[in-house]
Amino acid sequence: MVSLNKNYKNIKESYLFSDIASKVAAFSEKNPDVKIIRMGIGDVTRPLCKSVISEMTKGVKEMGEPETFHGYGPEQGYGFIKEPIKEYYKEHGVELLLDEIFISDGAKSDLGNILDLFSGDNTVLIPDPVYPVYVDTNIMDGRKIIFADSNEENGFLPLPDDSIKADLIYICSPNNPTGAVYNREQLKKWVDYANNNGSIILFDAAYEAFISGDYPKSIYEIEGAKTCAIEFCSLSKTAGFTGTRMGYTVVPKNLKAEDMSLNKMWLRRQTTKFNGVSYIVQKGGLGVFTPEGRKQISENIDYYKENAKIITDCMDELGIFYTGGKNSPYVWLKCPENMESWEFFDLLLKKAGVVGTPGSGFGSNGKNFFRLTAFSTRENTVEAMERFKKLVSSL
Amino acid sequence: MVSLNKNYKNIKESYLFSDIASKVAAFSEKNPDVKIIRMGIGDVTRPLCKSVISEMTKGVKEMGEPETFHGYGPEQGYGFIKEPIKEYYKEHGVELLLDEIFISDGAKSDLGNILDLFSGDNTVLIPDPVYPVYVDTNIMDGRKIIFADSNEENGFLPLPDDSIKADLIYICSPNNPTGAVYNREQLKKWVDYANNNGSIILFDAAYEAFISGDYPKSIYEIEGAKTCAIEFCSLSKTAGFTGTRMGYTVVPKNLKAEDMSLNKMWLRRQTTKFNGVSYIVQKGGLGVFTPEGRKQISENIDYYKENAKIITDCMDELGIFYTGGKNSPYVWLKCPENMESWEFFDLLLKKAGVVGTPGSGFGSNGKNFFRLTAFSTRENTVEAMERFKKLVSSL
Repeated sequence: MVSLNKNYKNIKESYLFSDIASKVAAFSEKNPDVKIIRMGIGDVTRPLCKSVISEMTKGVKEMGEPETFHGYGPEQGYGFIKEPIKEYYKEHGVELLLDEIFISDGAKSDLGNILDLFSGDNTVLIPDPVYPVYVDTNIMDGRKIIFADSNEENGFLPLPDDSIKADLIYICSPNNPTGAVYNREQLKKWVDYANNNGSIILFDAAYEAFISGDYPKSIYEIEGAKTCAIEFCSLSKTAGFTGTRMGYTVVPKNLKAEDMSLNKMWLRRQTTKFNGVSYIVQKGGLGVFTPEGRKQISENIDYYKENAKIITDCMDELGIFYTGGKNSPYVWLKCPENMESWEFFDLLLKKAGVVGTPGSGFGSNGKNFFRLTAFSTRENTVEAMERFKKLVSSL
Repeated sequence: MVSLNKNYKNIKESYLFSDIASKVAAFSEKNPDVKIIRMGIGDVTRPLCKSVISEMTKGVKEMGEPETFHGYGPEQGYGFIKEPIKEYYKEHGVELLLDEIFISDGAKSDLGNILDLFSGDNTVLIPDPVYPVYVDTNIMDGRKIIFADSNEENGFLPLPDDSIKADLIYICSPNNPTGAVYNREQLKKWVDYANNNGSIILFDAAYEAFISGDYPKSIYEIEGAKTCAIEFCSLSKTAGFTGTRMGYTVVPKNLKAEDMSLNKMWLRRQTTKFNGVSYIVQKGGLGVFTPEGRKQISENIDYYKENAKIITDCMDELGIFYTGGKNSPYVWLKCPENMESWEFFDLLLKKAGVVGTPGSGFGSNGKNFFRLTAFSTRENTVEAMERFKKLVSSL
């Protein structure tokens, strides 16, 4: 008689985005004339840049000709895309070996699949609020989870507490949902903690392309990180690949525990349970890293960052506390009048026709906070902030 | 201190294809004038068909325009590709619901990832010889594996033994590496065994497109299979998607164990650890199922099957025992003179310049067998078989 993974019974059903969708649908039905502006889901709106389209078009053509057709490729990705990623890291002072880079179909897959390498009896430290996938994937494996309070007092950037022992540590910087970004000194504290305790940091760098100040884009900019950290990155927000699907994961050769090499284990995992990313998509990834591609994607990122500035200017004007928006496409704001986040969601929808994400969907520390994204169009962002200002000024 | 998954220490390093590659390279260096014909690795050689290229070209173009750009799609796949798959099943008498079909980046990923749903204490029954991924993925989870003898006596089609209790059962039909295909009566025995014992069959249908006789293409053609089987399929061999990456997995709504729905569990797994297949690739998949696409891919399959016939005609002429080749791109032959499979590999390479795969790479029952694939070109297949005939006639 087959026996199932009972841990699945402990995963809470996540209704966050479906609850939002049904509330919006109900409102929309009652108020067909109201133009609703969506700043809730973290999906991009600008199309793939010309350089990406050009490389993918070539890739598709190659696949149709016997001389240039590509069958099975290396599970860990083609050299032609790993090379420019290696060069990209070099720009921010990080030297990687080619076989420390693994091309993936996105950070979400690898953040989940990496847990195959760890036993179920590790204690996992996860900030609250957080991207829900970190929590759910560990519940699926039955690991003990402890939460690090991420709140207004620490600017939503919790630091290690030596009295707490954690084996696996999740850090997302720039953070989803708070947009907060760690500086070098802060990240060094986490790296030191991990090396001192034999812990491993799972570093989610999916939003690194939004950093413009002197903040680390990679945890490997911090001394000692190569013996304690795995880094996950994605082209989803960097280059609008949310529906195109490509990311990369870095597992340093020096990352070892219990006499086992994590790099070798991950290679084994990927060659056994994965067959590589589509050749066409990897060609598209190449288009991100050409000089024209770099220029084109930075224009898109600047566009979103200008949207973020429109949002933060509004918060500044209203005197609302927030994090993010400067090195991140997310603005995490304190609900006016200390409202509960769903209460503010309802109010903002009904009175202003603007959709955001209630902070309580990301954890208990989010209960009086609210996330707005900068991924909308310029026009909608401007209009949404005008409506927001009018609403909050009237409270 | 982090604790790793110690089961990884028990996985044997697989050197099969790298050993083959280095032997071929060494021979080639010493004999630069010999034209080597490769019939070892199961990768296709014909390019993607016009219908697929046309749909992907449209898909790429859409991704470059704001009006038609696609961001995050449903993790389980777009309706536009699930609908034709549903229709395809209907052609062989299988009625599926749309949400029983999950689009994946290939059967290999899903065959590995599906094990997330099962606890580590199941006993797994795997035929020997076999596609090595079934074994390795279960060793990674520490499951007990028992092998079903697949051999000349049973035509490489083992049947259930009621005295043996297995919770998870792997069946691959048409089989890799043996090319043998189960008929309805034989598969019914496995389905009955599974329903009687509360076991779950993991049915690998990756080669179903090569079936032409009255053999089941899907396990769901067998009464009772929807309460005991998960089916994995792939466009890799169907439509040459080895480097394009798309497959699909069917988890019936009626598949339940311990009061849990496997369909719900898999949906939860995929929405948490996967973000869907690239929109462009799903468009390519759509091109497989249009009337022109169906015609074009069947021309490719016929081409490969004609190659297979050239191989089996040669075996028939030489009086060599084999399975496969009729409903499969693989011919699994008994080594002449009862040679050990690596010995025959060396002989065939040195005397005929032909590369195949030694059966011992697939399990102990393969030690006197050898796999040839029909995925080469017509010219090379003809030439390889002429050389084969000459060599074996001279022994």
